[in-house]
Amino acid sequence: MRFCRFNGNRLGLVEGDQIIDVTPALDVIPAQRWPLPEHDLLIAHLDEVLARANAIKAGAPRLPARSVHFNAPVANPGKIVNAPINYQKHINEAVDDKGIAHGRELKGKHITDWGLFLKATSSMIGFSDEVRLRKPDRRNDHEIELAVIIGRTANKVKAADALQYVAGYSMGLDMTIRGPELQCFRKSVDTYAVLGPWIVTADEIPDPNNLNLAIWVNGEPRQNANTNDLVYNVNKLIEYATEWYTLHPGDVIFTGTPEGVGPVKPGDTMTCEIERIGRWDVKIASEFAG
Amino acid sequence: MRFCRFNGNRLGLVEGDQIIDVTPALDVIPAQRWPLPEHDLLIAHLDEVLARANAIKAGAPRLPARSVHFNAPVANPGKIVNAPINYQKHINEAVDDKGIAHGRELKGKHITDWGLFLKATSSMIGFSDEVRLRKPDRRNDHEIELAVIIGRTANKVKAADALQYVAGYSMGLDMTIRGPELQCFRKSVDTYAVLGPWIVTADEIPDPNNLNLAIWVNGEPRQNANTNDLVYNVNKLIEYATEWYTLHPGDVIFTGTPEGVGPVKPGDTMTCEIERIGRWDVKIASEFAG
Repeated sequence: MRFCRFNGNRLGLVEGDQIIDVTPALDVIPAQRWPLPEHDLLIAHLDEVLARANAIKAGAPRLPARSVHFNAPVANPGKIVNAPINYQKHINEAVDDKGIAHGRELKGKHITDWGLFLKATSSMIGFSDEVRLRKPDRRNDHEIELAVIIGRTANKVKAADALQYVAGYSMGLDMTIRGPELQCFRKSVDTYAVLGPWIVTADEIPDPNNLNLAIWVNGEPRQNANTNDLVYNVNKLIEYATEWYTLHPGDVIFTGTPEGVGPVKPGDTMTCEIERIGRWDVKIASEFAG
Repeated sequence: MRFCRFNGNRLGLVEGDQIIDVTPALDVIPAQRWPLPEHDLLIAHLDEVLARANAIKAGAPRLPARSVHFNAPVANPGKIVNAPINYQKHINEAVDDKGIAHGRELKGKHITDWGLFLKATSSMIGFSDEVRLRKPDRRNDHEIELAVIIGRTANKVKAADALQYVAGYSMGLDMTIRGPELQCFRKSVDTYAVLGPWIVTADEIPDPNNLNLAIWVNGEPRQNANTNDLVYNVNKLIEYATEWYTLHPGDVIFTGTPEGVGPVKPGDTMTCEIERIGRWDVKIASEFAG
């Protein structure tokens, strides 16, 4: 199944080019009071919500996908975990381009030399929200990545068991301001984590480690690779992350970006595509954030 | 005023060595449904909640502070923003101690060379929760810090206006596994962000940039400094953070740790003290996390 959040607080099933509005299925999630849980409510109750959605979808309204506003399908991620230097050809291009590396030593480095970094959850938007670039004096880059949505609490999980903890997959854009600062600072700007346009449940993607992913900017090809080139694949990333901390339902893992990263400017359109997930545009706002 | 979260989901006012149970004041916060807000509910409604708490406190139950379990007073922080290398004497000790620096170039570095880092919100606990050390093969250090709780949405705020955005102050322990990896990875381990035991509202601390802070481990003095030695003080940290991203009610800023960081081991007791906030113990669990 494919599901999405649209028009702010509505839940949709995605079938072909249509969105089925199954918002009443959210009623199976109890109302909450302070203190709130640290997981995402929808992902933590996903099985019940989708069962209810299936039960009501025959009589539910249908809308053209092009007519809705796609918000981030995980509304309240506890954390956005990111894999740096996780495709060898991206490491190579960063070694060669000081505009990417900014003095960081990359040659011969492995993901475990750096560990995983975080993007602020306040940076997350959906595919119909616009990226608002900040810091006009800096280079702002696109980085397309396979995004993994954790479905069950995961702590010290082995790679062989890791996919059992995945709720689904989505497209992630790890928008990046280049510079000397730590990744978690430069990549946590408001609107710099794009997720969507929908989530494909894990049963539809039995092997996340063999998916083509690509991005075009204003129609020009930029990145085009396959997740089988990941240094740490999805299984291994979950093992590695959960050696250090617990992952909760709704936590998102951005699995790393391949070669071909490059600058974007206000007004650009980024067309993102990942095999078995889909193809959709993300717009960059016409002016820098005020 | 001083307020706390205790025994899981209860709200307390702190007066002397007593906790006044004003939990019914939380009723002013509306129940929530998916998608949840990205701020902390208590902090976003703090004025109304504390007004109601004041109105009911005369008839409310009182408990000895020693008898309650202090949870993190911000239950749902959107982000935990941290200042690295923000006391010169801590930079100096890290230059001299490879067990802290692990190859990172520190000499002559300024906080703006690194930017601010994030700790995962899933790492946050309160003063009565135990720190559970992980990675027995690594050095695990205490770092005491003044913690700032943001009260209002803050974007591109000037230093001169910054304190208007603060709800209050608390004690923060930025527990740290040493090693080569990025700070946001090594410092995001479950239980490695301690906040509490309570929050002192901003009106009681007109100058956060002149507070003594100290920590003892099993009674032995370790860190003892004053926030007037901060490289970027509270005002400037808020200005700097909000140049890059928006701060929301309940976001927490750990302002950086002074010199005297050092290792801890299972079973240790850390006694934390910050002027005008208080003095309280944090225990380290007797065994490493399984």
